[in-house]
Amino acid sequence: MNDVLTLANPAFKTYVLAATFVGLHLVLLALWTGTVRAMRKVFVFPEDARLNKGRQAESEHADVLRVQRAHANLLENAVPFLIVGLAYVATGASAAGAELLMFGFVAVRVLHSIAYLAGRQPFRTIAFGLGVISIGTMAIQVLRAALSGSWQPTHHARN
Amino acid sequence: MNDVLTLANPAFKTYVLAATFVGLHLVLLALWTGTVRAMRKVFVFPEDARLNKGRQAESEHADVLRVQRAHANLLENAVPFLIVGLAYVATGASAAGAELLMFGFVAVRVLHSIAYLAGRQPFRTIAFGLGVISIGTMAIQVLRAALSGSWQPTHHARN
Amino acid sequence: MNDVLTLANPAFKTYVLAATFVGLHLVLLALWTGTVRAMRKVFVFPEDARLNKGRQAESEHADVLRVQRAHANLLENAVPFLIVGLAYVATGASAAGAELLMFGFVAVRVLHSIAYLAGRQPFRTIAFGLGVISIGTMAIQVLRAALSGSWQPTHHARN
Repeated sequence: MNDVLTLANPAFKTYVLAATFVGLHLVLLALWTGTVRAMRKVFVFPEDARLNKGRQAESEHADVLRVQRAHANLLENAVPFLIVGLAYVATGASAAGAELLMFGFVAVRVLHSIAYLAGRQPFRTIAFGLGVISIGTMAIQVLRAALSGSWQPTHHARN
Repeated sequence: MNDVLTLANPAFKTYVLAATFVGLHLVLLALWTGTVRAMRKVFVFPEDARLNKGRQAESEHADVLRVQRAHANLLENAVPFLIVGLAYVATGASAAGAELLMFGFVAVRVLHSIAYLAGRQPFRTIAFGLGVISIGTMAIQVLRAALSGSWQPTHHARN
Repeated sequence: MNDVLTLANPAFKTYVLAATFVGLHLVLLALWTGTVRAMRKVFVFPEDARLNKGRQAESEHADVLRVQRAHANLLENAVPFLIVGLAYVATGASAAGAELLMFGFVAVRVLHSIAYLAGRQPFRTIAFGLGVISIGTMAIQVLRAALSGSWQPTHHARN
């Protein structure tokens, strides 16, 4: 019962791996923002315009704004995913449920970023919706565990 | 001593539940942003204007900006809450302390979002301040535990 | 093997402390945003302009925007750090590795905020890069542990 948040629990392993992928995805979008900004050579801060020999403007280049919005959207969804995912594991996620919902989230968010950067709809909205469904499904399992009154992690029984 | 981050610890149960509520709160504000945008029919991306038969503009509709700012404010506060809350549980939060500080945070942030969307001051600022006090109080407990040198989880002794 | 995410593990202690510092850093930048806004007396919402006897404008004062961007940059990097850091501890971080990478991250992000607010380049970009290297190094360790197939926490052997 005490090894729910250890690698002895396959659902926790899945969480650790999925969370690391989401973290790397966030870092890659941050680096891509800087790369696109350096390529377009438009900067909102004078010190950046000087450093990169670009020009200063009131707002970011449209291409930079697009990456920033894709990045912000991932961050907004990653935080609920990461915390509800941890709660889901702590309240007894099954190995199969964790794999489906967590690796599913990782995959649809990669598709979301691609669709966002390429300006492709309705694929972006569909990917966003699937991510929300993953988070919502895990949240329901947590609330069900809480309301059941038992609050016992059950992954051993299920595996 | 090894069951601090398991459901055997009432403070961890409280954390799991409060964190899930905060995660759902974030998802609801994300969905509300999209709903208000679809109702106002103003879009910053051409692919969205086409898909929703709306018009494209340089910036979001004022009503959408308000939801986005409420959402961003929650995210900025949720991340410190979630991480300091976990640290607080790990360093020996009492069951009563966790309930007060965590369910208190969940409640004042709901009030914050309502006050933000309704444009009601000073209620928004008061709710924000109470949320910060919750995070600060937990952080002080973590630092006290760290400085005491003992670093032993004490929830058993307190319960 | 079951005490990886407890204070019996020095790497987890380091994580708890570093994560709390990052959380406090985020809260301080949020409070600083509000302070600069109150000093510059420019507000995007009418209810704030009324409450603070300032003027309403289309966008935030340039000084407020700078703090907001520093804050957003920390948040974008804090989330991957916090989650990859937890995964790194869960997969067997050594005490020394955790101290270097985590307290290093805390330190370079403080330097990043100072450089951002002071408009000092290339220090801001260097600090950002060092933070990314910390996250990337921890992510590589997690993926190596996952790919090795063993997935056993090894901190006992190393300490």
